[in-house]
Amino acid sequence: MSHKKLSITGTFLDEISHDINHQNWGEAEWEKDFSAMKSIGIDTVILIRAGYKRWITYPSSTLINQEGCYQPYQDLVAMFLRLSEQFDMQFYFGLYDSGNYWVNGAYEKESALNMKVIQEVWDQYGDSPSFGGWYFSHEINRSNPGIIEQYAVLGNFCKSLTDLPILISPYIDGKKALMAHESSLTKAGHISLEQHHREWDEILSQVKDAVDIVAFQDGHVDYHELLDFMKVNKQLCDKYGLAYWTNCESFDRDMPIKFLPIKWDKMRLKLEIAQAAGVNKAITFEFSHFMSPNSSFAQGRALFDRYKEYIDD
Amino acid sequence: MSHKKLSITGTFLDEISHDINHQNWGEAEWEKDFSAMKSIGIDTVILIRAGYKRWITYPSSTLINQEGCYQPYQDLVAMFLRLSEQFDMQFYFGLYDSGNYWVNGAYEKESALNMKVIQEVWDQYGDSPSFGGWYFSHEINRSNPGIIEQYAVLGNFCKSLTDLPILISPYIDGKKALMAHESSLTKAGHISLEQHHREWDEILSQVKDAVDIVAFQDGHVDYHELLDFMKVNKQLCDKYGLAYWTNCESFDRDMPIKFLPIKWDKMRLKLEIAQAAGVNKAITFEFSHFMSPNSSFAQGRALFDRYKEYIDD
Amino acid sequence: MSHKKLSITGTFLDEISHDINHQNWGEAEWEKDFSAMKSIGIDTVILIRAGYKRWITYPSSTLINQEGCYQPYQDLVAMFLRLSEQFDMQFYFGLYDSGNYWVNGAYEKESALNMKVIQEVWDQYGDSPSFGGWYFSHEINRSNPGIIEQYAVLGNFCKSLTDLPILISPYIDGKKALMAHESSLTKAGHISLEQHHREWDEILSQVKDAVDIVAFQDGHVDYHELLDFMKVNKQLCDKYGLAYWTNCESFDRDMPIKFLPIKWDKMRLKLEIAQAAGVNKAITFEFSHFMSPNSSFAQGRALFDRYKEYIDD
Repeated sequence: MSHKKLSITGTFLDEISHDINHQNWGEAEWEKDFSAMKSIGIDTVILIRAGYKRWITYPSSTLINQEGCYQPYQDLVAMFLRLSEQFDMQFYFGLYDSGNYWVNGAYEKESALNMKVIQEVWDQYGDSPSFGGWYFSHEINRSNPGIIEQYAVLGNFCKSLTDLPILISPYIDGKKALMAHESSLTKAGHISLEQHHREWDEILSQVKDAVDIVAFQDGHVDYHELLDFMKVNKQLCDKYGLAYWTNCESFDRDMPIKFLPIKWDKMRLKLEIAQAAGVNKAITFEFSHFMSPNSSFAQGRALFDRYKEYIDD
Repeated sequence: MSHKKLSITGTFLDEISHDINHQNWGEAEWEKDFSAMKSIGIDTVILIRAGYKRWITYPSSTLINQEGCYQPYQDLVAMFLRLSEQFDMQFYFGLYDSGNYWVNGAYEKESALNMKVIQEVWDQYGDSPSFGGWYFSHEINRSNPGIIEQYAVLGNFCKSLTDLPILISPYIDGKKALMAHESSLTKAGHISLEQHHREWDEILSQVKDAVDIVAFQDGHVDYHELLDFMKVNKQLCDKYGLAYWTNCESFDRDMPIKFLPIKWDKMRLKLEIAQAAGVNKAITFEFSHFMSPNSSFAQGRALFDRYKEYIDD
Repeated sequence: MSHKKLSITGTFLDEISHDINHQNWGEAEWEKDFSAMKSIGIDTVILIRAGYKRWITYPSSTLINQEGCYQPYQDLVAMFLRLSEQFDMQFYFGLYDSGNYWVNGAYEKESALNMKVIQEVWDQYGDSPSFGGWYFSHEINRSNPGIIEQYAVLGNFCKSLTDLPILISPYIDGKKALMAHESSLTKAGHISLEQHHREWDEILSQVKDAVDIVAFQDGHVDYHELLDFMKVNKQLCDKYGLAYWTNCESFDRDMPIKFLPIKWDKMRLKLEIAQAAGVNKAITFEFSHFMSPNSSFAQGRALFDRYKEYIDD
């Protein structure tokens, strides 16, 4: 493997998914996929969220009793931790997304609920040697006092329990910042580079003590705009002492079917741009659906082959 | 196999499809799939419709001459009956959907056409030992005098020929009652439980002599609302002496790609709710695309594995 | 193989794609697919376009320097020509589509740019024995003075270099003339047969010296309308001394997922209609995604089987 190339060393685990169809894997299939991750050097897995609305990943008495969430049939957090230990990976726990409170401005309620979840999870799973960090699953694109305060509250709470790193993965409010169910491919009124710089300078100045790693998503601006945005992100992360990772999306935002695996050339270009911008680490959303030899999509299995050829070259 | 669990013992056959892509199977592939159905205990297959607009499943002189339908290349009704006999299943014949007359209020024309189709089909295929019933393919969600009259006319006509059971599969006008090509995921102005109760009390009181089995689709309300709706449906079916089946959808309505196979946990939850509500039988829309070991979708092949593990446990 | 049936003897190569997800094939996969094409008698391959916006198929100094296109990782034109030579096929080169100039009325700029591309390509690849023609990738449906002038300018330029044939593949402005990302399935205000006749008489009278082959797309009108439109197309092509091919689409325009492989019966019907209308040759958009034994879509692999059964019968 060439040491010159930026390679993917982390992936999200998209359970519970917002918008990506489930592959209906059981534990045997997940074990096989962790093995495939390991084979290309993935050392970090990030649970996208503890739950979304009523569907949750682990039998949380908080969420079941307080929010009416469904009792899960399987403890995915326990399973992912077991597999992380088996394959010597670090596991980041993604917070619960109510799909409700914070969306409607009730940030304090979202925070209070998640503090209970964090405490519960830390009590229950915190002694796993693979429990490696927290992921704040409430995505942000623009400056927003409510979410910044939420980050601060939750960051302080996590750090009161443990000094594990805290990861966020914001997106740029670029021309491709659309919801998956929207039929259009381009957003009107997207942000300029200068405005992005200004707003994220403000945001990071306020959350710098609450988070440790910022992994900007790389799919919301056009490919020829990406280097400039990444340079700004890098400069701002450096300014505030934060690690800058790239969240290199392995699904294709440019096509009517939302979403199938990305064209390899696009992913390669984004990795090369990220490397030029000086990112510290590349993770992807996400390996199992979109670039795994076990993917349900043949295009994803082929993406794995192309990626391997590239990285092994 | 546990006798405690509600299992899927029937499936629709989605020919001619409104909105699900064809798998391009020939007779050998269909035989293999009937064998897979049989292996999990499916004893009932329901042709979703005799035809839709100009595409039809059997060489109907009525539909070809009167409606300008295309001459089919294959007699699917004959093939499905052959396979039903071979695998000892009951076949329900789904009526023709003009996609035109009844949609535009011409219920009498839709009925008159379908009486000819029913007579033609009964003359041509009625002696098959697997010809087990009729399925009224014109789906209904709210009270509608025209469609109720259509059901009555067609029910009486079928019963004048044979006492085979008549099945309908209505849907609840819930928050997920959207057309497949609509990009949104949630419908505004969906029905309340009380209104649903009121309208279906009225509907069933009027169609109770024309139909025998009501298999409500289970995908148009949220999972936590489903038990209440199913209890109402059960109570109403009991009141009018109708069998209450659940049409447990095996495709996922919550995702932008319309449609891929459902997440197994969702299907399992719906089956458990249906069992709690006291349904008499579970069928699915539908096995071959979404939960078959022969599905074109890997997610569906995995759904079969998860379902098998569950039901065999 | 029956000599009575119209068979597919040409296919587009959908690189760079507008709207179809990439299969992430490398050269080995492409070689395998050319072999599959050859096995069913395909003798003509048509590059859909040299590039689209900033993504291009060959390392064009014109497009990279002048338009800021990305340096391609692979020379697809060279690869396709190699494979065409290996399998004894004719390769048509599709022009560059800026997705910008001509769309915004700057036809002269689109033409000027493409003249440079044509010259560059002819210099670089023109001596390949498989370089068989030019394809004008700027699709047209209605009479439009700007695009007609563009065709004339580019046609004259190509013919000044070589007498290789020039192909266009227009579409009918029918009820299914929608963009892939639009959620609707039917277009309001589509063209009548008479208007189509009138406009295309005018168009072809003006481009008859600039192009040699007109391969109308067959997917934008309903199946029962197709014969009438094709007869008009045939009559007009005969009138102006142009070859009339059919571009028989192998993807399904009638389904919410845009796009999966077409139902075989639909493709068969379109081929039979095209034969009845007297077309000279059938090509498809396109083999590799939608009707190849190597397709990422199982439905496409099955379409290949059904097509083979038909054509070999």
